[in-house]
Amino acid sequence: MRILGIDPGIAIVGYGVIDQRGNQLKVVDYGSIQTPAKTATATRLKQIYDASTELFRRFQPDVVAIEKLFFNRNVTTAFTVGQARGVVMLASEEAGAVITEYTPLQVKMAVVGYGQAQKKQIQEMVRMILSLPDIPKPDDVADALGVAICQAHSTTFTARLGSRRLGQ
Amino acid sequence: MRILGIDPGIAIVGYGVIDQRGNQLKVVDYGSIQTPAKTATATRLKQIYDASTELFRRFQPDVVAIEKLFFNRNVTTAFTVGQARGVVMLASEEAGAVITEYTPLQVKMAVVGYGQAQKKQIQEMVRMILSLPDIPKPDDVADALGVAICQAHSTTFTARLGSRRLGQ
Repeated sequence: MRILGIDPGIAIVGYGVIDQRGNQLKVVDYGSIQTPAKTATATRLKQIYDASTELFRRFQPDVVAIEKLFFNRNVTTAFTVGQARGVVMLASEEAGAVITEYTPLQVKMAVVGYGQAQKKQIQEMVRMILSLPDIPKPDDVADALGVAICQAHSTTFTARLGSRRLGQ
Repeated sequence: MRILGIDPGIAIVGYGVIDQRGNQLKVVDYGSIQTPAKTATATRLKQIYDASTELFRRFQPDVVAIEKLFFNRNVTTAFTVGQARGVVMLASEEAGAVITEYTPLQVKMAVVGYGQAQKKQIQEMVRMILSLPDIPKPDDVADALGVAICQAHSTTFTARLGSRRLGQ
């Protein structure tokens, strides 16, 4: 199963692609789509949409995992991030991928096993779980890999639950 | 000049098309794109994107006017509206239209001439300015026509300013 984790924003969209075989996670690629600040919003949204469409075409993910919402930021940020998220979800839908959403708490629990985990701890665990030499930069890339790991663990859990039920 | 006003949302996207010739405003069409509530967000976003693309193809607007932001709503609403707005702006950009944004205050000033105007007053003025038999429903449609009027008045103002300058 190939999972593409996404952390959308208008300036930076982080992404991380991982392949899951049983309990094994293998990083395929990670990086970011970046748009220039002094560009019209609509133009930046089109750049994000085009680059996302290209990502989906190149990696053909089975599942696209994305953070559900955040509650700590202000209305203007939510609005701006929402716009970027909208065009990423559109590209994902057009590519026929299954979209799953996880709350920041779910990501923390899946990656660190602790809901009060700090950003730095999550990033370090992402690095360890995926055997990366360094923490991917910028933060958005590490966050995207975090959501992808959350999706992978959730799938493992569901599969385990399924086999346990079958074994009853 | 043909203006398309848009009031985006995930459930309802209101739109209003008006033609401006000098001081004259003529309604071409208005209505709404609606998406079913019990549908995945990504699917609804694609429906909005496809219907918006069709709107731009059909009416070929020179300018697309859209509300800039609202400050009275909560973060979740801003996030959800942002997503819908993102795909509408993408469709607009792809259609090559100029996109202009106005704050709710600018719309009130342009339509009613009074920044504290109530929703009902704005809707009634929209009806009168465009010589409509009734206030268009749902509210999102009247709001979209309001933004379109705001754009028209702003253009008139700019044109007047331009000719005054030329006449100096």
